[in-house]
Amino acid sequence: MGKKIKLGVLGGGGDSLIGILHRVASSMFDKFEFVGGVFNPDLEESKKFAQELGIGTDRIYKDLDHLIAEEEKLPEDERIKVVSILTPNFLHFPMAKQLLENGFHVICEKPMTTTYEEAKILEDTLNKSKTIFAVTYTYTGYPMIRQMKEMIAAGEIGEVQKIDVQYYQGWINPIIHDKDERNSIWRLDPEKGGISCCIGDIGTHAFDMIEYVSGLEVKELLADLNYVYSDNIMDVDGTVLLRFSEYVKGVLRSSQIATGEENNFAVKIYGKKAGLKWEQENPNYLYKLEDGQPIKVLKPGHEYNSALSLDGTKLPPGHPEGIFDSMGNIYKGVAKAINGEKYHPAEFPTMKDGIRGMNFIEKVVDSHAKGNVWVKLDA
Amino acid sequence: MGKKIKLGVLGGGGDSLIGILHRVASSMFDKFEFVGGVFNPDLEESKKFAQELGIGTDRIYKDLDHLIAEEEKLPEDERIKVVSILTPNFLHFPMAKQLLENGFHVICEKPMTTTYEEAKILEDTLNKSKTIFAVTYTYTGYPMIRQMKEMIAAGEIGEVQKIDVQYYQGWINPIIHDKDERNSIWRLDPEKGGISCCIGDIGTHAFDMIEYVSGLEVKELLADLNYVYSDNIMDVDGTVLLRFSEYVKGVLRSSQIATGEENNFAVKIYGKKAGLKWEQENPNYLYKLEDGQPIKVLKPGHEYNSALSLDGTKLPPGHPEGIFDSMGNIYKGVAKAINGEKYHPAEFPTMKDGIRGMNFIEKVVDSHAKGNVWVKLDA
Amino acid sequence: MGKKIKLGVLGGGGDSLIGILHRVASSMFDKFEFVGGVFNPDLEESKKFAQELGIGTDRIYKDLDHLIAEEEKLPEDERIKVVSILTPNFLHFPMAKQLLENGFHVICEKPMTTTYEEAKILEDTLNKSKTIFAVTYTYTGYPMIRQMKEMIAAGEIGEVQKIDVQYYQGWINPIIHDKDERNSIWRLDPEKGGISCCIGDIGTHAFDMIEYVSGLEVKELLADLNYVYSDNIMDVDGTVLLRFSEYVKGVLRSSQIATGEENNFAVKIYGKKAGLKWEQENPNYLYKLEDGQPIKVLKPGHEYNSALSLDGTKLPPGHPEGIFDSMGNIYKGVAKAINGEKYHPAEFPTMKDGIRGMNFIEKVVDSHAKGNVWVKLDA
Amino acid sequence: MGKKIKLGVLGGGGDSLIGILHRVASSMFDKFEFVGGVFNPDLEESKKFAQELGIGTDRIYKDLDHLIAEEEKLPEDERIKVVSILTPNFLHFPMAKQLLENGFHVICEKPMTTTYEEAKILEDTLNKSKTIFAVTYTYTGYPMIRQMKEMIAAGEIGEVQKIDVQYYQGWINPIIHDKDERNSIWRLDPEKGGISCCIGDIGTHAFDMIEYVSGLEVKELLADLNYVYSDNIMDVDGTVLLRFSEYVKGVLRSSQIATGEENNFAVKIYGKKAGLKWEQENPNYLYKLEDGQPIKVLKPGHEYNSALSLDGTKLPPGHPEGIFDSMGNIYKGVAKAINGEKYHPAEFPTMKDGIRGMNFIEKVVDSHAKGNVWVKLDA
Repeated sequence: MGKKIKLGVLGGGGDSLIGILHRVASSMFDKFEFVGGVFNPDLEESKKFAQELGIGTDRIYKDLDHLIAEEEKLPEDERIKVVSILTPNFLHFPMAKQLLENGFHVICEKPMTTTYEEAKILEDTLNKSKTIFAVTYTYTGYPMIRQMKEMIAAGEIGEVQKIDVQYYQGWINPIIHDKDERNSIWRLDPEKGGISCCIGDIGTHAFDMIEYVSGLEVKELLADLNYVYSDNIMDVDGTVLLRFSEYVKGVLRSSQIATGEENNFAVKIYGKKAGLKWEQENPNYLYKLEDGQPIKVLKPGHEYNSALSLDGTKLPPGHPEGIFDSMGNIYKGVAKAINGEKYHPAEFPTMKDGIRGMNFIEKVVDSHAKGNVWVKLDA
Repeated sequence: MGKKIKLGVLGGGGDSLIGILHRVASSMFDKFEFVGGVFNPDLEESKKFAQELGIGTDRIYKDLDHLIAEEEKLPEDERIKVVSILTPNFLHFPMAKQLLENGFHVICEKPMTTTYEEAKILEDTLNKSKTIFAVTYTYTGYPMIRQMKEMIAAGEIGEVQKIDVQYYQGWINPIIHDKDERNSIWRLDPEKGGISCCIGDIGTHAFDMIEYVSGLEVKELLADLNYVYSDNIMDVDGTVLLRFSEYVKGVLRSSQIATGEENNFAVKIYGKKAGLKWEQENPNYLYKLEDGQPIKVLKPGHEYNSALSLDGTKLPPGHPEGIFDSMGNIYKGVAKAINGEKYHPAEFPTMKDGIRGMNFIEKVVDSHAKGNVWVKLDA
Repeated sequence: MGKKIKLGVLGGGGDSLIGILHRVASSMFDKFEFVGGVFNPDLEESKKFAQELGIGTDRIYKDLDHLIAEEEKLPEDERIKVVSILTPNFLHFPMAKQLLENGFHVICEKPMTTTYEEAKILEDTLNKSKTIFAVTYTYTGYPMIRQMKEMIAAGEIGEVQKIDVQYYQGWINPIIHDKDERNSIWRLDPEKGGISCCIGDIGTHAFDMIEYVSGLEVKELLADLNYVYSDNIMDVDGTVLLRFSEYVKGVLRSSQIATGEENNFAVKIYGKKAGLKWEQENPNYLYKLEDGQPIKVLKPGHEYNSALSLDGTKLPPGHPEGIFDSMGNIYKGVAKAINGEKYHPAEFPTMKDGIRGMNFIEKVVDSHAKGNVWVKLDA
Repeated sequence: MGKKIKLGVLGGGGDSLIGILHRVASSMFDKFEFVGGVFNPDLEESKKFAQELGIGTDRIYKDLDHLIAEEEKLPEDERIKVVSILTPNFLHFPMAKQLLENGFHVICEKPMTTTYEEAKILEDTLNKSKTIFAVTYTYTGYPMIRQMKEMIAAGEIGEVQKIDVQYYQGWINPIIHDKDERNSIWRLDPEKGGISCCIGDIGTHAFDMIEYVSGLEVKELLADLNYVYSDNIMDVDGTVLLRFSEYVKGVLRSSQIATGEENNFAVKIYGKKAGLKWEQENPNYLYKLEDGQPIKVLKPGHEYNSALSLDGTKLPPGHPEGIFDSMGNIYKGVAKAINGEKYHPAEFPTMKDGIRGMNFIEKVVDSHAKGNVWVKLDA
């Protein structure tokens, strides 16, 4: 108890935003000690970055093979126990597989893999290991999202009857309209970005979120994607009709051409008794709507929130926490799992979330390619 | 000039909400004098209501036939010139037709008719007459909606590339889940309500609005409706994928089972240069989003608004106006048209809006019935 | 019953904003018939304006003397019963006095008089008459303000312990910084505007509002005014410390140099059990804050509101009403009073509000002049 | 470069909220290594806590004397360089003084001291040393506060003409109304809390903030405090009139009996050209108001922000950061100062802020005690 878990990191060097997000998150609850990794394909660059971070260079490795080999030589309680994978997407799968096969716990950025097939293989690998695996759907760590999930699970809004989720950004707008730009950016190159841009990058967040908060599974979907130009083969916008059951429907809207939107991720779940609404850019407000009642606005840190929600708030009400704190909560959950402490299964997204996400992406692209028809997700 | 236009009203008696909305709206700009009509199938009830309103009973008629016959006997400048039709939906068509044929101007509540076929007939009737016809898509009268329309027309957001409109209510939620209620309410009875409940009542508002503000026409749609129970044959929720052209898409979401929502009608239009957002429940705020710029919040009454918008604001900035004022603006436009004054064609919704709306409803129901497939709207 | 009350208007001609506000408000509930008055010192102008409004010119009078004389010749049920005074401020007192003395009911714009002394005289006049007198503190007609008042009266927030009211505008900002402008505008000329600009025009609204909603009376105050330039002798900004009792305090902040503010009038009342907050620019939201509870957001038209509040809402929840509707509610209350119907005493502001307001203005100026010291209001 | 600065902490043990805030903040930018300190008067407790945090126990000391003595024995580059003081308020002064005298840099929680006299002594001590001293007025680290300061400094709102700051909380409400509670809580005991509760705890934040963002100094003030009960001698609410110069005035409102308020700290600064508004609970929004212009809403991370603001944002726009990130920015500034790097003087609050704050508290209490009169702050 109290001994920090040694953490290694793959990727995330230099000015990487995802790098700082994971580093800060890992340090928030005094649970992890970040000791080394492979930040860059170039060892010297990796070492330089380690120095900038003020950590030693002795556990900075040439590549993942060396990391595994060298760490295994160390006494067990000195060894890196968990590795965060922040590399380009196509490396997530091979790296995660190798780490799991060698007994390391893994925290993997999304998308977990580049194909659903890889995801299934990774699931098998995990099942054969005794390791913890988390995929960082970061937004599920927000206290009010956890509260939303718990309220629905407790029946506070009655049976869910309608789901509406939006994830709108505008960042690709200037790029898509410039022929040179759109033909050169890696996000719009299937070799590097996988089979989908918008759905793959943000649509999956939306998909994971609604299954997370509602506790329901999407059974079928019908998708309409937009590529905007005929010389572009990656979606930058898409609307997906969802069926959870015959009479429970939903809609998922995602876009990267919603000009001027920053990171407008909004979740609405309506049940027979009440509705719940939340927006990522103002994450400390959860709205409960009931017919004939005043709107109720729930905020983090209050006793009326569930234990799962309260566990994710560090300060008293009125002290806004943000996305670093959300990711911190996910790391905290992983730490508990690694340490064998009791934890709530909703504290971090798991292999199942990763699998579902990859299946979702492929089915969306498939539905669109077939002319916007209904396709079933795998059970 | 200055002589008020004599106004008659059909329906809208008793506690009718639509009645008070039209009466207040008609009086706002001192343009109309409300002199009589047929408020109720029972003449005595009609007269009683006239007394409550403090108008004389001498121009309260037994029915529309009598109204037409008697008014025609009056000197032309004493005659009722325009009639507002606020009766149950199935009466809109025959009444409007008869009035137009007899040279009365008409202000008709929506839905304009119960079928697209009727709508086409009414259009013919209007074309043969020399009358003014307005259909009250009330929300188009808001100053910030007019401003939105003008900004788009002026190219301020560039070419429109994505449209998202939502109209969410929750009022039918308790009704739909009670078998007796859902089998007895007129809204869910096709004999009385037409072929659609949710799309017909609020989906059309959303449809009209996006064509109004964007200046674009929906070419094709794919709809997914929800009836919630197998013994119910009227939609209470529906999502509609929209195509304006090959690469300009949209989504229309409407619901009456969005539990706890009041009248949450929200419009988002994204262009190549900027996005615009507006919400009916907070109608005095128009948000302009541009990549890399502060969000701009426009409000009514400022000089930076267009003439069309400013014409719809009576007081200086900071004095909130609401839905009565929005309907008042529509009546003001109709008055200008009747008086032969110069007016902007966007001051009130016309026959074309009514026609488009009826076509939309039928196509949505058709798309759903065929298994959620693409169908084309009439040109 | 049902016979409309004949209404005359003094002032409010041409493009007068206050004119349109009163005309629309008076027509909202079919209670008044606007038949004539004196709109302008020039009779021809008055008649021209009547024609523009589409009312007859036969009851347009040269001046108030003529109005009184001529109307008294008419049969009682044809006569103007109530007169709205919308003239320049210095005329409010003599006109109201003459009308009351001649048995007319009066609806008077604020400020009721130009001095407290006049106000006391007017009170005496009213006491000797059998007429109804209302002063239009317009904002008290909002449904959520009425709800706020009723909740406090019902003890829902416990004993009131702190009051904070703000009325910030920015309109005088460009004027005050231009020497010519500030030395010529009537608002900054005590001959025309009375002894105070900011406190007199908007501070009184704030003062009336807090006494209205809290049911408490300010006993003492200490004021600090700002004249911004030494050549200006009218306040354009002022903060007033308030004492309701030894341990119940408050603060009133008003400004016309809060650059960019439109009409930012905000009321906060905190009791031992809860707090209530409201903002004029978003008048359909009332916030209830309780320790350890979700914030509750109340909106108009819901059954959970009091009868007084519901009486002031015409449409179902989600259909925003605004300031015209607020003034309409005040006119409705006056109509009930004139008609001898039952009404809630809070339906319109009365002589007492006018008296208190004038006393407040004089005491504020006095406190400031004496060096920001505590002064007592009259009991 | 890159070598982390060794950080020691006094206090902040156990569940201390301030403890976690400082620990997380110190780790955010990989600049500090938290190595030990004195968390608790009981050495064993201190060591236990160190183990919980996963740091070694070898640099956990019995008391500050031991910390200083032992650390000085270490090679210079191993030594604790900076100490964060998170102990009870009365210990801030002696500990800070001793540390400065011994060449340690200091990060001190507010209030810096318990009296203005102590503050002056500490200033002398600092002036004789070559150390860095920061006092953690945490809220000044928010990116949009920094942006506000820079915009004002750059003249974007013109000459400042009115300042309004509010800091409302409701937490003491249940305590103050319970005689036993109010007579036993340390906050209301001058022996432990200093001469003021509300002004001392939160009023100083408000005072520091307005001087920080406006660049102006308060010259005189007039305060009205509320003790609520005669048996209570510590203020729980207070309004303070401010003068920056003859014609530039302001008002500071702070309360702990604003029932239901969490941490409602709001800053409004109006200049001749524009106004700026910000609220701590929604810290990522800065509103700019200009006469006749759309409201502009600025958000963190955009290029339109100043370098000082951008330096305090880690992720792209739309990823909300919160109070931990704000404190992290302050620590980052201190690190730059200690490392001799270039930094903006506004990156962290300094001795001057501490001095001003203590002077403010004493003058407020003095003004109130003398009967709400104007008193001058020290130059």
